[in-house]
Amino acid sequence: MTTSTLLPNHLGGQWVTGSGAGTPLFDPVLGTELARVSSAGLDLTAGFAFAREQGGAALRALSYGERAALLGAIVKVLQANRDAYYEIATANCGTTTKDSAVDIDGGIFTLGYYARQGEALGSAHALLDGERIRMGKDPVFQTQHILSPTRGVALFINAFNFPSWGLWEKAAPALLSGVPVIVKPATATAWLTQRMVKDVIDAGILPPGALSVVCGSSAGLMDQLQPFDVVSFTGSAETARIIRSHPAVAERSVRCNIEADSLNSALLDPAATPESEAFGLLVSEVVREMTVKSGQKCTAIRRVFVPRALFDAAAQAIGAKLAKTSVGNPRNEAVRMGALVSQEQKASVIEGIARLRLEAEVLFDGGGAALVDADASSACVAPVLLGSREPAKAKLLHAVEVFGPVATLMAYDSIEEAYELIRRGEGSLVCSVYSADPAFIATASLELGSAHGRVHAISPDVAASHSGHGNVMPMSLHGGPGRAGGGEELGGLRALGFYHRRSAVQASSAALDVLAASAVALKL
Amino acid sequence: MTTSTLLPNHLGGQWVTGSGAGTPLFDPVLGTELARVSSAGLDLTAGFAFAREQGGAALRALSYGERAALLGAIVKVLQANRDAYYEIATANCGTTTKDSAVDIDGGIFTLGYYARQGEALGSAHALLDGERIRMGKDPVFQTQHILSPTRGVALFINAFNFPSWGLWEKAAPALLSGVPVIVKPATATAWLTQRMVKDVIDAGILPPGALSVVCGSSAGLMDQLQPFDVVSFTGSAETARIIRSHPAVAERSVRCNIEADSLNSALLDPAATPESEAFGLLVSEVVREMTVKSGQKCTAIRRVFVPRALFDAAAQAIGAKLAKTSVGNPRNEAVRMGALVSQEQKASVIEGIARLRLEAEVLFDGGGAALVDADASSACVAPVLLGSREPAKAKLLHAVEVFGPVATLMAYDSIEEAYELIRRGEGSLVCSVYSADPAFIATASLELGSAHGRVHAISPDVAASHSGHGNVMPMSLHGGPGRAGGGEELGGLRALGFYHRRSAVQASSAALDVLAASAVALKL
Repeated sequence: MTTSTLLPNHLGGQWVTGSGAGTPLFDPVLGTELARVSSAGLDLTAGFAFAREQGGAALRALSYGERAALLGAIVKVLQANRDAYYEIATANCGTTTKDSAVDIDGGIFTLGYYARQGEALGSAHALLDGERIRMGKDPVFQTQHILSPTRGVALFINAFNFPSWGLWEKAAPALLSGVPVIVKPATATAWLTQRMVKDVIDAGILPPGALSVVCGSSAGLMDQLQPFDVVSFTGSAETARIIRSHPAVAERSVRCNIEADSLNSALLDPAATPESEAFGLLVSEVVREMTVKSGQKCTAIRRVFVPRALFDAAAQAIGAKLAKTSVGNPRNEAVRMGALVSQEQKASVIEGIARLRLEAEVLFDGGGAALVDADASSACVAPVLLGSREPAKAKLLHAVEVFGPVATLMAYDSIEEAYELIRRGEGSLVCSVYSADPAFIATASLELGSAHGRVHAISPDVAASHSGHGNVMPMSLHGGPGRAGGGEELGGLRALGFYHRRSAVQASSAALDVLAASAVALKL
Repeated sequence: MTTSTLLPNHLGGQWVTGSGAGTPLFDPVLGTELARVSSAGLDLTAGFAFAREQGGAALRALSYGERAALLGAIVKVLQANRDAYYEIATANCGTTTKDSAVDIDGGIFTLGYYARQGEALGSAHALLDGERIRMGKDPVFQTQHILSPTRGVALFINAFNFPSWGLWEKAAPALLSGVPVIVKPATATAWLTQRMVKDVIDAGILPPGALSVVCGSSAGLMDQLQPFDVVSFTGSAETARIIRSHPAVAERSVRCNIEADSLNSALLDPAATPESEAFGLLVSEVVREMTVKSGQKCTAIRRVFVPRALFDAAAQAIGAKLAKTSVGNPRNEAVRMGALVSQEQKASVIEGIARLRLEAEVLFDGGGAALVDADASSACVAPVLLGSREPAKAKLLHAVEVFGPVATLMAYDSIEEAYELIRRGEGSLVCSVYSADPAFIATASLELGSAHGRVHAISPDVAASHSGHGNVMPMSLHGGPGRAGGGEELGGLRALGFYHRRSAVQASSAALDVLAASAVALKL
């Protein structure tokens, strides 16, 4: 793409280019304009109705197994076009090949996972939720809970950091459930989402209306939602507030899943020493989390809790590793960490660091090293490790998420204080625990579980096999309470729950026998 | 109570009388003032903090089995004071003894059910949600989903029609989960809720802060909610909108359960004849639903769908049964149906009937018969059956819920049309299906499940044992999508989910083994 053109939207079963000049998308390293997006002038009402009626009916006519086969076919199309996606990611997201993989291959892996899970559900058209329960003394009358696909559309309003994975981790369970998808990618990185949808539509895999993409402004999208529709949003707490206050949600009870800002923690066992394996594992994971995708992961470690006696040793070890992280143009193979996605994000991260510095000291600042193949006007930002020896007195450190290669090391005196400080995040996506002691890990999981969607424990015996603090695996829940938005995604077949409605069928055993023949037990 | 006094509130572990004159509660039949309520001047911030910190910590220190024993002890206290509750219900709710039982004994039954379910959970402090799942090739690293009690309070803003059941159906799973309860009953019928809480507090069963009651205005209650708190509301869609738009929910992600207005349906099999058992079962159930608690049940049948050929026969049969329903003072044993709870409700029902008459004819009006022991100034309203032979052309009939002894009979031509018309309710709590054919029931359940929280099938073989269209049983889900509010209550141990947070614990098998020792599998 040498001249910047408007990316077409796909809505109402056809490709439609928005009107007006549109909003430009840039290369965050080179500053060049790549494409433009516009949703102006689209007939949203007709488009949503087409998806809901045509797309929904066609998907619901298929069984879970048949829809799983569609997911498998999507995987093949995406795999065939992988090279193009990496090119787009490098240009539009400023990511190294390794970081692009997290988004692109992560999305394809998640689709493949749901294709396999769905295949096992076979020819059923509904899910049985739990066992039959007697309603009284006479066993002829019983209750059986079932999950039926909702007769609406799924609107995804997505974040800029995962244009591929963010689409497919939601679309896989939605399509498997028989619910048509309309995705509105974040404008800054909309290109990759649009291109993937284009490849899938062009391949003719899905029934018309099953998958739509609207690039540009989200204005008017929420107005289209009706009671059986659902909306899933990933992004800022401020936009989350607007979505939840919208009449679609507040008045029409449209089901709403939010994944928002959070201040994820890493916790080192109080029994650790600087020589312990747990210490080394924490140091490596913190550095990895700060630098993968330049820290632009909603799951990245933001707060690092270590026993007070280990504060200096941890600061030194993390800083030493960060010093080896070369930052710059992802096209240069010597570069370990690319750019932030946009100038807006760069400005936001720099401002965020300044705010955190009101309560924290700078333990390491990679800003002194020269950028590789990139200049100061690019959206590159070097890693910064902040520190606080008095985190109980801090407020901003537990409240302000800086969405870049930034974390704050904090000292704790007792494990109870550490739990209390971690919970000051008011709900996070994930907390990781570093310990060689299974009993400590179990206790920490119970203490921290209610404030987190995921607890990730790294012990020496899983050092080689664990999946990483920040990597979201499809078999585990993704989401968190409070500040993290209160949503739940993935978690294997749990993800299907959002796209199904649960009902209790109270009926005679004879009727429940017939019902069971067209349904399959949901096993978690 | 001969003179009207202010009912004390229980908050912050103590009894506190609100300031000012308060709002009066009336006998809806006699018009006499019974008591007053006021929440003015309460220190809500201190009260909520006390419940959250003292009550929550004390409850969480107990196991599920120990908390279940507390529920069992509450059952005993309530049973010992049953006579007083019936007196209060007759005076303040205007209900016959039979109707009072639905509220009072229904609440006690639900508590007893959760006491038994909780006992089986034993000494555990968390729930295991599903099986362990391998995260990769090496089985040493796995994920186990767990449910942990949320570290917050549960605020209940309750409806006027079930001052007893409405409290206990929510409080039983909350307390069993280890979450302290603060209940704000609807003012018109707050007395019974307040009295039951008083008896339980006075009996010293629960730890301080575990159960609080605030009578009067709900002003300021939502402002107290913090990220790990939850709020459950039963009432109008308009108040639901206000609650969902409140910053606690919209910004702080406070988990919110809504049970609101809905237009529940009854559907007669197209194969039915006037002589069929299914026809007779529908007629009886419609009459029962219209008259139990004077139709003041959120689950009551509002729309009755019959094949066009049976419209006149159904109108006649339902009208003939309704004509036998004596209406008046519930203290007179000849009375089958008491009053509405208040003059406000009476006015609302009369206005609602007038609105529905814009689209419906009157098939039966019990208003011609004299009230028994009550005069026209009481809040008594006789049953009214409306009818529409062209329900596809109607809008109000599918949108306006008249919360009294009122239902509308509607003719359908094809079963597909019937499903479509039922779904025009945009989400309801329950739909009942009347048929002798198990296959028809199974198909109807799958067609209607996604628009309902419950499908209740009445066939001749369950005529004697089914639990009733409108009765909410603790083992079955209660709630519904869209207009019904989108909430989920009860459903056996599913109810505990609202008061727990789900997390994925990703750890070594050794750590998960230790974790499993203090948790119990959630079996549904």
